[in-house]
Amino acid sequence: MKAEIISIGDELLLGQVIDTNSAWIGQELNKLGINVHFKSTVGDSKDILLKTLNESAERSDIIIMTGGLGPTKDDLTKHVLCDYFETKLVQNEKVLEWVTSIFTNRNLPIITSNLEQAMLPESCEVLWNKNGTAPGMYFFKNGSAFISMPGVPFEMKCIFEEEVIPKLKKQFSFPTIIHKTLLTVSIGESFLAKKIALIEDKLPNHIKLAYLPNVGAVRLRLSAYGSNQEALTHELNIIINELYACIGEYIFGEEEESLANAVGKLLIKNKQTLATAESCTGGYLAHLITAISGSSAYYKGSILAYDNSIKENILHIDKSIIETHGAVSEACVMAMASQARKLLETDFAIATSGIAGPSGGSAEKPVGTVWIAIASPTRCIAKVFNMGDHRGRTIERTALMGLDLLRKELLTAN
Amino acid sequence: MKAEIISIGDELLLGQVIDTNSAWIGQELNKLGINVHFKSTVGDSKDILLKTLNESAERSDIIIMTGGLGPTKDDLTKHVLCDYFETKLVQNEKVLEWVTSIFTNRNLPIITSNLEQAMLPESCEVLWNKNGTAPGMYFFKNGSAFISMPGVPFEMKCIFEEEVIPKLKKQFSFPTIIHKTLLTVSIGESFLAKKIALIEDKLPNHIKLAYLPNVGAVRLRLSAYGSNQEALTHELNIIINELYACIGEYIFGEEEESLANAVGKLLIKNKQTLATAESCTGGYLAHLITAISGSSAYYKGSILAYDNSIKENILHIDKSIIETHGAVSEACVMAMASQARKLLETDFAIATSGIAGPSGGSAEKPVGTVWIAIASPTRCIAKVFNMGDHRGRTIERTALMGLDLLRKELLTAN
Repeated sequence: MKAEIISIGDELLLGQVIDTNSAWIGQELNKLGINVHFKSTVGDSKDILLKTLNESAERSDIIIMTGGLGPTKDDLTKHVLCDYFETKLVQNEKVLEWVTSIFTNRNLPIITSNLEQAMLPESCEVLWNKNGTAPGMYFFKNGSAFISMPGVPFEMKCIFEEEVIPKLKKQFSFPTIIHKTLLTVSIGESFLAKKIALIEDKLPNHIKLAYLPNVGAVRLRLSAYGSNQEALTHELNIIINELYACIGEYIFGEEEESLANAVGKLLIKNKQTLATAESCTGGYLAHLITAISGSSAYYKGSILAYDNSIKENILHIDKSIIETHGAVSEACVMAMASQARKLLETDFAIATSGIAGPSGGSAEKPVGTVWIAIASPTRCIAKVFNMGDHRGRTIERTALMGLDLLRKELLTAN
Repeated sequence: MKAEIISIGDELLLGQVIDTNSAWIGQELNKLGINVHFKSTVGDSKDILLKTLNESAERSDIIIMTGGLGPTKDDLTKHVLCDYFETKLVQNEKVLEWVTSIFTNRNLPIITSNLEQAMLPESCEVLWNKNGTAPGMYFFKNGSAFISMPGVPFEMKCIFEEEVIPKLKKQFSFPTIIHKTLLTVSIGESFLAKKIALIEDKLPNHIKLAYLPNVGAVRLRLSAYGSNQEALTHELNIIINELYACIGEYIFGEEEESLANAVGKLLIKNKQTLATAESCTGGYLAHLITAISGSSAYYKGSILAYDNSIKENILHIDKSIIETHGAVSEACVMAMASQARKLLETDFAIATSGIAGPSGGSAEKPVGTVWIAIASPTRCIAKVFNMGDHRGRTIERTALMGLDLLRKELLTAN
């Protein structure tokens, strides 16, 4: 079975928006065992989209389109689909009701272009968009499935997961594929590969291993292809156990879990609480923690001591520590963690202090120098890192490393 | 003149790598006034690449390929180019010398697959790659230019800038195209479209307007096509002035600027400082502010009062305020802003308090209810919003709205 993806929008051709949708869709189709063999990007032009649709039907069983469904004049997808499927736009009452309710609930006025979102090709099946006003559309013609979704990533992803996958599963029969993802942190891709080389080398042909690196983390995805679900699961479990025995200390979770969520689960289990005191991470560490719903059960808050006056006046860190050692120092970051733990009355605290750059570095403390401390009920530890010279990545890596140090402390302490 | 981009590699179709190259190339071509009208992505497959090349020659004057030039067996681009241009691989002595020197200088052993990088199609012009072992290639056939570059972004970018652009400028004469992007916030796409309908309706055919929405923000991009740079600039400026007159209050910046950066520039200009007191945004507001390098000049820090005990013990908010009105209330958020401004000794403070969800809502205060306050040297104001029922987006929207309220206060106050 062959799939292709058509991304629609001038902004993609102009490069003003990077097409992350098609990568995500490629991954999801892959998990289902569907091979994406072609992707194309076209602008907001009726002729080119129509031509691309005609070609796609000849080469693919599944054609997935994103974009061009907004309420403005440059959005043409619906009209092209009407031409291609020789149908016309009609008002969909359920969608109209939904669109109206969105504006009513938020006390916003509704205008004609919003209502036009409820005008849909007569021959399509509606793919419900619970996150926005533009529904997706599903067509089936000459053995091929055509799916059109809005380009806004969170709307598209939800429609794909909740509406598209069930429809495709009903329409086509899929091979058996089992995926399992192990999430690692604090170890680079090449070091990981070296550590698990023996396991990787003896993998049978029908089990594939992929390294999917992110900033500060590497996902290991195992994919097993076959026909017998039970036997495949058994085979995969043996390999996963081997991986845990080999690199277990780096594995913080499985599948889609975030490191912040893994840490949160440990805190909940132990009925313990957490505070942070951030300098160089500038709130990003707290953001990772509070992005998890339910984090208020264990996370009490943070003192973001970006300026040294806050370290002194709010965190009450001895002025002499900063004068003697500087704010980016073992002494300062340990004082930050201990004070945060004490003032915010928690069991644990994470503190960060570093030079995110691009300016502020010195020969002794170059850009990328970061101290992280963990205060626990029994001790306070600190470590120094060099996170490189890219501000954004230094902030991300530091926040992840802080969470991983806490994770290890939680595993040791309990 | 029409250009298209062909990205080559299985990892792109699988979605394991996001194609940022083609967005970058799109931007660069656009700056030259070259319109990218089509992009495609193909896997490491000889047949599909050859077919795509054949099609591309019919529709485009400039065809830019990236990827598939590595030293491993799955890299096929060179072989396909030989087929397409009916030529054969020959050894290029200069490239051989270069590749050998790279390995010699690093004291690395050299293997056959590395040396094969010096085998190039006889009819191509070599595009020098000073950052790697795979050179780029330039062909010209039946009026179309074909460019092949490696997929590694920093290698590709350097080849494009130093080798490709000069070649294209010699081969073709370029039209004039001018882009201008206005950045708006706190107004939805459809409302914006309605407000500027009169301006949009009378745009001449050679000036196009595109709406590029993000969470909480919409970019308006104007593109003017023509031959006379001066006349086009003049024409565009008139339209931009009209847009400012019509929706100026929503425009926070132009081109690539972020809202946090726009706010930072206002604070720097006025030599004023900022603090935050966050509850529901959980550090994300501080993160947006501190993601800007140089923010330490005006941003002092934050008290992240996630738990009510922090609001009372660190921010010193009267317990009775929370008992009487709740933490998500006008009284509480105003006290948070005022206290943050006072305790952190700044000119301005932003405070947020809301129910990000998914739990914690009530009939009176449903999920998505958010209060935002701004404390300034002269007053404290607060506004309530309903940000919807998606935790992540509520956090994002609230942070942006907080920055925008501060922006307006800064513009009013000074």
